[in-house]
Amino acid sequence: MKIYKSNEGVIKVCFGKMIPTETISGHAFEVCEDQELRGGFLLEQSELKWTFSLDKEDVVYGLGQNMRGMNKRGSIYESFCSDDPNHTPDKKSLYGAHNFFVVQGAKTWGVYLDFAGRIKYDLGFTSPDTSQVSVEGQDVDLYFFEGTFSGIVRQFRKLIGQSYVPPKWAFGYQQSRWSYEDQDKVREVAESFDRHDLPCDAIFLDIDYMENFKDFTISEKRFPDFKAFVDEMKAIDIKLVPIIDAGVKIEPGYDVYEEGIKNDFFVTDKQGKPFVAAVWPGKVHFPDFLNKDARNWFGNFYHQFLEMGIEGFWNDMNEPAIFYSEQGIKEAIAFVKAQEGLNLDIYTFFELKDNILKLSNAEKDYKSMYHIMQTETGEKKLNHYDVHNLYGYNMTRAAAEGFTRYDDHRRYLLLTRASHIGMAKHSGIWTGDNHAWWEHLKLNVHMMPALNMAGFLYAGADTGGFGGDASGELLVRWMQFSLFTPLLRNHAAMGTRVQEPWQFGQHTTEVLRNMMRMRYAFIPYLYSEYMKANLNYEMLFAPLSYVYGDTMSKSVEDQLLFGESMMLAPVMEQNAKGRYVYLPEKMAMWRIESFESLDVLPFTLMEPGHHHVDVPTHEFVTFLLPGKLVPLAKPANRVSKIDTTDLTVIGYVPEKATYTYFDDDGVTNAYQKGVFIETHFEVLKKETSYSISVDTNDHKLRNVTFYLIDDSGKCHVIKQGVPIESMQLV
Amino acid sequence: MKIYKSNEGVIKVCFGKMIPTETISGHAFEVCEDQELRGGFLLEQSELKWTFSLDKEDVVYGLGQNMRGMNKRGSIYESFCSDDPNHTPDKKSLYGAHNFFVVQGAKTWGVYLDFAGRIKYDLGFTSPDTSQVSVEGQDVDLYFFEGTFSGIVRQFRKLIGQSYVPPKWAFGYQQSRWSYEDQDKVREVAESFDRHDLPCDAIFLDIDYMENFKDFTISEKRFPDFKAFVDEMKAIDIKLVPIIDAGVKIEPGYDVYEEGIKNDFFVTDKQGKPFVAAVWPGKVHFPDFLNKDARNWFGNFYHQFLEMGIEGFWNDMNEPAIFYSEQGIKEAIAFVKAQEGLNLDIYTFFELKDNILKLSNAEKDYKSMYHIMQTETGEKKLNHYDVHNLYGYNMTRAAAEGFTRYDDHRRYLLLTRASHIGMAKHSGIWTGDNHAWWEHLKLNVHMMPALNMAGFLYAGADTGGFGGDASGELLVRWMQFSLFTPLLRNHAAMGTRVQEPWQFGQHTTEVLRNMMRMRYAFIPYLYSEYMKANLNYEMLFAPLSYVYGDTMSKSVEDQLLFGESMMLAPVMEQNAKGRYVYLPEKMAMWRIESFESLDVLPFTLMEPGHHHVDVPTHEFVTFLLPGKLVPLAKPANRVSKIDTTDLTVIGYVPEKATYTYFDDDGVTNAYQKGVFIETHFEVLKKETSYSISVDTNDHKLRNVTFYLIDDSGKCHVIKQGVPIESMQLV
Repeated sequence: MKIYKSNEGVIKVCFGKMIPTETISGHAFEVCEDQELRGGFLLEQSELKWTFSLDKEDVVYGLGQNMRGMNKRGSIYESFCSDDPNHTPDKKSLYGAHNFFVVQGAKTWGVYLDFAGRIKYDLGFTSPDTSQVSVEGQDVDLYFFEGTFSGIVRQFRKLIGQSYVPPKWAFGYQQSRWSYEDQDKVREVAESFDRHDLPCDAIFLDIDYMENFKDFTISEKRFPDFKAFVDEMKAIDIKLVPIIDAGVKIEPGYDVYEEGIKNDFFVTDKQGKPFVAAVWPGKVHFPDFLNKDARNWFGNFYHQFLEMGIEGFWNDMNEPAIFYSEQGIKEAIAFVKAQEGLNLDIYTFFELKDNILKLSNAEKDYKSMYHIMQTETGEKKLNHYDVHNLYGYNMTRAAAEGFTRYDDHRRYLLLTRASHIGMAKHSGIWTGDNHAWWEHLKLNVHMMPALNMAGFLYAGADTGGFGGDASGELLVRWMQFSLFTPLLRNHAAMGTRVQEPWQFGQHTTEVLRNMMRMRYAFIPYLYSEYMKANLNYEMLFAPLSYVYGDTMSKSVEDQLLFGESMMLAPVMEQNAKGRYVYLPEKMAMWRIESFESLDVLPFTLMEPGHHHVDVPTHEFVTFLLPGKLVPLAKPANRVSKIDTTDLTVIGYVPEKATYTYFDDDGVTNAYQKGVFIETHFEVLKKETSYSISVDTNDHKLRNVTFYLIDDSGKCHVIKQGVPIESMQLV
Repeated sequence: MKIYKSNEGVIKVCFGKMIPTETISGHAFEVCEDQELRGGFLLEQSELKWTFSLDKEDVVYGLGQNMRGMNKRGSIYESFCSDDPNHTPDKKSLYGAHNFFVVQGAKTWGVYLDFAGRIKYDLGFTSPDTSQVSVEGQDVDLYFFEGTFSGIVRQFRKLIGQSYVPPKWAFGYQQSRWSYEDQDKVREVAESFDRHDLPCDAIFLDIDYMENFKDFTISEKRFPDFKAFVDEMKAIDIKLVPIIDAGVKIEPGYDVYEEGIKNDFFVTDKQGKPFVAAVWPGKVHFPDFLNKDARNWFGNFYHQFLEMGIEGFWNDMNEPAIFYSEQGIKEAIAFVKAQEGLNLDIYTFFELKDNILKLSNAEKDYKSMYHIMQTETGEKKLNHYDVHNLYGYNMTRAAAEGFTRYDDHRRYLLLTRASHIGMAKHSGIWTGDNHAWWEHLKLNVHMMPALNMAGFLYAGADTGGFGGDASGELLVRWMQFSLFTPLLRNHAAMGTRVQEPWQFGQHTTEVLRNMMRMRYAFIPYLYSEYMKANLNYEMLFAPLSYVYGDTMSKSVEDQLLFGESMMLAPVMEQNAKGRYVYLPEKMAMWRIESFESLDVLPFTLMEPGHHHVDVPTHEFVTFLLPGKLVPLAKPANRVSKIDTTDLTVIGYVPEKATYTYFDDDGVTNAYQKGVFIETHFEVLKKETSYSISVDTNDHKLRNVTFYLIDDSGKCHVIKQGVPIESMQLV
């Protein structure tokens, strides 16, 4: 064990020599052997076990994509990227491996475990006051942080580097289904959005756009002239987002397969032969994304789509999901065959069932796969199981690096299912194959802050649920939350009820239209907060205790801070007509029916403490923090149509309110070089007037309408061209 | 279609000639053809489709054992007894078929569909304001009710008759596990309760007590002298409760099998040969419980256990659960075999998987099974699928009728997994194979009123959860609710974390001890309310809107009225330190840590409306309704040790409070003939005193201690021998 400290106070503890995950950006650490460590460490058999105690009031935040509440205490978790579509409450891992958490209590601290294999967390489950973290390996780096919750998040995020930023259009509404099977169907969907006056910026292509599920192919039957169809959609400002799967179909003559074989770019078995698994295309090989050369090779295939005008992708099945392996099914069939005609005792029957059921994503298969990785000391052969959590990460890195080689100036939409810390610089994530369950709306709410902690700012759930049938009410309530998530995508599985926003009757379509238009109105605030959260290593979604120090704020599990100016209190129960809300300080409730409903001045000043508020299905409530502002645009049906020269600025202004609005071209990485708009709003409440200043470097503001709520709860509407200096109360 | 009306105003609508379910007790109906019916009826192909509209504010209660909230609106349900241990939110049916629901709104009405087959309910899912009920058949009786929610429940419950009443000991704590494998283990468990000073009245024997899972056998290895062991346990006042499964092992020489074969008492295939399925014992036949003679025959086997002193049973696997059928596995293995060595395309792989997965509880099998039923017009051969929901009901009826033949005076504990309306007169139910999920604690809360509506008063969930691993916190919070359910059983599956109350550390054991002792303290009130709910056709657990007419009471999903004097507000969230509570009227909050904590006068008067209350894990809160009283006993470790001559009576007495206490011998059916204790308490608040009267027919009361909360929130403790007339305020 070696201990180091950075000049920012981060403690690094190294056990053995970890397999490089490349998650940490350059950071200077110095040896610091006398540092006292938290809890006890035990190297036992092939594991590192770390035990620490929890104080009664400690809350545990983090672990990224995982089940259960925001407070992770009292349960068991595992970091092991898993393709399991049944996100029931007892599941220990989902698609991502995000080994960072913060313990908030009398003493607040955090830890990141830099490790590529499986880690188990017992966070006060077996014994309520003790936690045990078991690392399946003895080569691991741990980074310890101390300070405030927000300070620790900033330290960690700085350590892993800036997050991925998609193009601005990707903040628009996105529609998906497994599958819109051909161009006629896609066109029909696109047209339906316009016909129903519903906003939309992108339509996803699920696996059926390919020819026999072969990566980087396009079915000629379904899309006879793909390039022309991409152009046709672009003409109406709709982006197509094709899926790319991890497995490469074994098919002689298929270029990806042939090149992979020729160059030894596939994951192998122990003997060094390409490992055979089966996923959508039937039998496949898996590209060895841990091999830099294979990564480069695979990343270049995306260029074919970029050439045709595609600007976004989603990488799927990259845990990697395995339906079965060649060896696995051989053994399973042999077992079943041996039972023929026998009077099975019941345990043999269950064994038979298990033999078939457990064919998919079998640990045995993962342990039979091998990678080549270039390390400082040369090429290294690694067992897949030991680096499992790096696979999806590096597939997506392959794509991202491919984009950079194609055009290092431009931003592309990139989503992935499997993920790992460090990947957040390359891509966003969707939260995987959830269900049309109210519980999964709650899960979505609980997960957003943990994803932000892990660096994943561009994230969102399949709104309405992927598996199962959604009701109109569920879709509406989910939309009322998702309209705040950077990724807003409605996606549903084959065989489920159609889930486009016009499928639930006229009234529901109207309600959804109001919500979705509201999303577009929020984009100035959302985008601004997103970019600032990234540049300043802040969270876009946060538990109340990220900001507020009172005890109650630590136990609120169904409200979130959203950016610096808002608190969200989504309704997440079927048939609910309202909900309870806790206010850690005085705030203005904003009851939103539509953008236009601003006319009725839908604001109510509310005292700190507990409240019950009515929230009919066609409305949702948000809360404005004192002294902050929220810039809105007029709704539009495409992001490109949003007019940021005409803003509406809303705020609860007890005495003073400020806001820094951020914007940029939305297309390039110029923001990284400081090329962006920064507009400072300051509103000062005088006795009978407001003094308002708007200070910008490059913002062509024509009009701003202010909705300013004063401390008596009265809302003053001030419509002004700019520049604005001081004006009378209206 | 024929329409009738009873003189109590119940409308009966008959389509065709239904297969008799024998759920309705004798009731006089007269033809009434001009009655207008609710909604529209359509006979279509082989179904009856009934469509009706829902008003915006309508709430739908009922459907007994089912998923989701108390308000069933907005989802799809099916009545089809199902053995499916994954009670995820999208499941449409569980183990019971309870076709009674009430629509509460501007107009309140209810309906019971008397039908033995599958019924589908779309209660405002597809379209929010429309419901469609699809009956898989055209021979069905519908009973319509109008009036108030409680009035309709009373009408319906009167129609189906009085509910099952277990012996009083069955209101004690019951411990179970799959399995306590032998008598040494059972003894150890029993002794552990006493050693930990934890109350317990019964220990369950799961399938492993049998010899090779054969009904009505006992493993000689595990229980070398069963009768002696039953006696040994009885000597320490612990009852053993063995399980009985539906399937009878095919084994030449085994008496149940041989007799069944000889008498044609088994369910057959189409050709009339006994149908072969496999469950725990391997291959089995199913007794034809719809055949009266088979029912009598099977019921008599229970006598062997009664002879040995057993006083309770649980009937399991009686949906009936089928792991696989002989024909099913033959076909599945053939399919798998045919795929050997082939390069499976992915759809064939999923078909292979489905072939194995869908072997269990296959509709195809149910459609291949046949019953013989004695009807008015002679014996009738019935396809199982058409009478599926009657199977578990009639297995349990077989047992109950067997008990009556053995001793028609005595009460026995009888539980069943599968159930149907009408069965409530014969047995209680446990709510099946739930999980150690917080969601299933919620489900338990939501389900209790619906079960009560269907007549199932003696009911409870596997506290702590059957599948999966419970945390100590979950078990504590679940216990805090279950301590009110008539059946209080802790049961967990093989392979899960041990779940006895002493398994979670000393602190948790102490908390659970306080809770479980509190349960025993509550038994006077619980038993009294149970018996009155039965005799008066009331609900023991009810949504607030059962009593309160305000709008908010219709949307509260996490509080229940419990008997006439209390409201419960269980904590159902992990890590929660408190919860919101809605009070429809002024009530006294009673914060319970233990029975002994009464000393600190843990009462707080609370105004109507919304409140947030702190509820640390070692406490729970209940609410006392004004003008009502709650009689308690001192805690004991066995029901038999409860001293009902020394009561503690608690109440919030604004001006006056009354309570009718009911008790009986707890052993026999004498209560049915009016042999019971009735004690009327009346407390009148005077200016500086209380006038208290206690009026009883046969209650040997020695002492009563009153805790009376006045309208200023002050609690007055009055300890008195009886008779009591009037006393000064203390």
